[in-house]
Amino acid sequence: MPAPRTISLDAMGGDAGPAVVVPGAAIALERHPGLRFLLFGNAARINPHLEAHPALVERSRIVHTDAVVEMRDKPSQALRRGRSSSLWLSLEAVQKGDADFMVSAGNTGALMAMAKLVLTTMRGIDRPAIAGQWPTLRGTCIVLDLGANIGATAGQLTEFAMMGAAMARAILHIERPRVGLLNIGVEEIKGIEEVRQANAWLKENEFGIEYCGFVEGDQIGQGIADVIVVEGFAGNIALKTAEGTAKQMAAWIREAFSSSPTAKLGGLLAQTGLRALKDRMDPRRFNGGPFLGLNGIAIKSHGGTDALGFASAIEVGHEMAESRVIERLSSDLDALHGKLGEPQRVRGSS
Amino acid sequence: MPAPRTISLDAMGGDAGPAVVVPGAAIALERHPGLRFLLFGNAARINPHLEAHPALVERSRIVHTDAVVEMRDKPSQALRRGRSSSLWLSLEAVQKGDADFMVSAGNTGALMAMAKLVLTTMRGIDRPAIAGQWPTLRGTCIVLDLGANIGATAGQLTEFAMMGAAMARAILHIERPRVGLLNIGVEEIKGIEEVRQANAWLKENEFGIEYCGFVEGDQIGQGIADVIVVEGFAGNIALKTAEGTAKQMAAWIREAFSSSPTAKLGGLLAQTGLRALKDRMDPRRFNGGPFLGLNGIAIKSHGGTDALGFASAIEVGHEMAESRVIERLSSDLDALHGKLGEPQRVRGSS
Repeated sequence: MPAPRTISLDAMGGDAGPAVVVPGAAIALERHPGLRFLLFGNAARINPHLEAHPALVERSRIVHTDAVVEMRDKPSQALRRGRSSSLWLSLEAVQKGDADFMVSAGNTGALMAMAKLVLTTMRGIDRPAIAGQWPTLRGTCIVLDLGANIGATAGQLTEFAMMGAAMARAILHIERPRVGLLNIGVEEIKGIEEVRQANAWLKENEFGIEYCGFVEGDQIGQGIADVIVVEGFAGNIALKTAEGTAKQMAAWIREAFSSSPTAKLGGLLAQTGLRALKDRMDPRRFNGGPFLGLNGIAIKSHGGTDALGFASAIEVGHEMAESRVIERLSSDLDALHGKLGEPQRVRGSS
Repeated sequence: MPAPRTISLDAMGGDAGPAVVVPGAAIALERHPGLRFLLFGNAARINPHLEAHPALVERSRIVHTDAVVEMRDKPSQALRRGRSSSLWLSLEAVQKGDADFMVSAGNTGALMAMAKLVLTTMRGIDRPAIAGQWPTLRGTCIVLDLGANIGATAGQLTEFAMMGAAMARAILHIERPRVGLLNIGVEEIKGIEEVRQANAWLKENEFGIEYCGFVEGDQIGQGIADVIVVEGFAGNIALKTAEGTAKQMAAWIREAFSSSPTAKLGGLLAQTGLRALKDRMDPRRFNGGPFLGLNGIAIKSHGGTDALGFASAIEVGHEMAESRVIERLSSDLDALHGKLGEPQRVRGSS
């Protein structure tokens, strides 16, 4: 039986701070009554939100600090003045072993910079990747990197494959995930050198994954793979573009059902099905992106999510902690580096 | 009054060849009765399709050739054996002044390689870009590059801005188009060096456009700009991802309306609105991507489109020819290169 989990929360992160973090924790506690919480932040601002959740009060400890990293702080600013911030302290709790994982809805750049310093990166990893969940016709897939790295060497793309596979095992419970490499054109003659080299390595070696070769952007949503690997610039653009297209279509659907009284009636009759459609795409269900490649679990929640969305981010961390993802990934990466050798992994200037 | 246009068509290109090209030309002729067509390809295969379109027969001349570039030929193979191919000859008709523009649904890589050789690139341009039309909540925007270039220097991104603006003037009839630079994060501290440098140039100079700074992937579909500029790897992935997301949502909508007898009735009542939604996203309406930066107009049609889609691609070429896009773009690029100077435009190795 696994030990009860302690979760470290940056209570001040995100657009709404404790007004979302506290009720989010309450939802997570309902799902997993054994959880304990460390809430880092301004006690006077956290306490009023706790009042509505007596069960949570019993399972929580507030660690007061006045210092907060602002959403608009540059990573360098955050680092200079942020070592007593709720963000830094919530990471430190994981590093010290006081918590099993941390969640923050705060400043992504600051979280990345601090997580690297506090949790440190795994052996051979320069910079973690950010992974996310993507709704598909067949369920959910993991896409990474979503913007932590701009450009990626073949070695980094191969590392992302291992990281994404580790997350798929933890979150999707697929022991041997199908992994695809995002490219333009499915013919092997196409694509950049780094992507082609990563393709060759993933094909030639046994890494405990089902490698399915190149995939194109329109195949992500079909669920052609459990893990989609891409460098961070294109990955971030793909994710945002998919979100934008979904919103655009939702606006058109609303318009279609308000175009006439008959259409409005049609919408009423189909409302159960339409609500299911809305639920399927609900971004709150897919909230929570782990930083992979760190010696500890740090989850980034969207800054503008609500309590339900924040609870999803906690769930991601919980699944990862349950599946002992750090130990497994660390040994997978060591095996990868052993197979490919040091010289091949040398980073370019990108 | 503009002169009647002559259009050069690669009748053998695409999945269906003349079975799509010929009826596509017939639709274009209905829209613009003054058009003339040069049909390059196998006369024995073209003629049977012409029989159903007597008006088109009168306005067409078949230029017979047996040689065809196959969809799976590599550009180098196509170049070696393709100088008598329908693709090459249809480009040559534009270069010789026998036609105002050409359209092919054939092999993209071969079309690119041959177009560079036959039409040649504009002064200072190494490689053309491929542009496309993207449906938005506010109408249509132009996105480029869609994959002709992998990676782009700041100078190339700035050139893409000029090329996209020229296309927006021709197709969207907007004299001073809003141009955005696709990036990850809207803060100026984010993004790669090339994108940041292009941003600075576009801000500091007057290029006859309304520069609106960085845009993110989710803003494309909102119609925040008339032209979206991005290097070809991320641009191709963004386009394909949007197409995939639209298909995914269409599948979910169909499911929502077949989930129960009541929902089916609802779908029937809303069918006018739903059909309008389908029309809005119909990829055939947005078919036809010009290669920009060439001394001549070459339009790539999707290889799998039908006659209606092929007619859209002809329409794109027609609008571009009407607006004298080549002359205008050529002088805009000269002005750009004059402003930015040669050294700044030096290409990187990417």
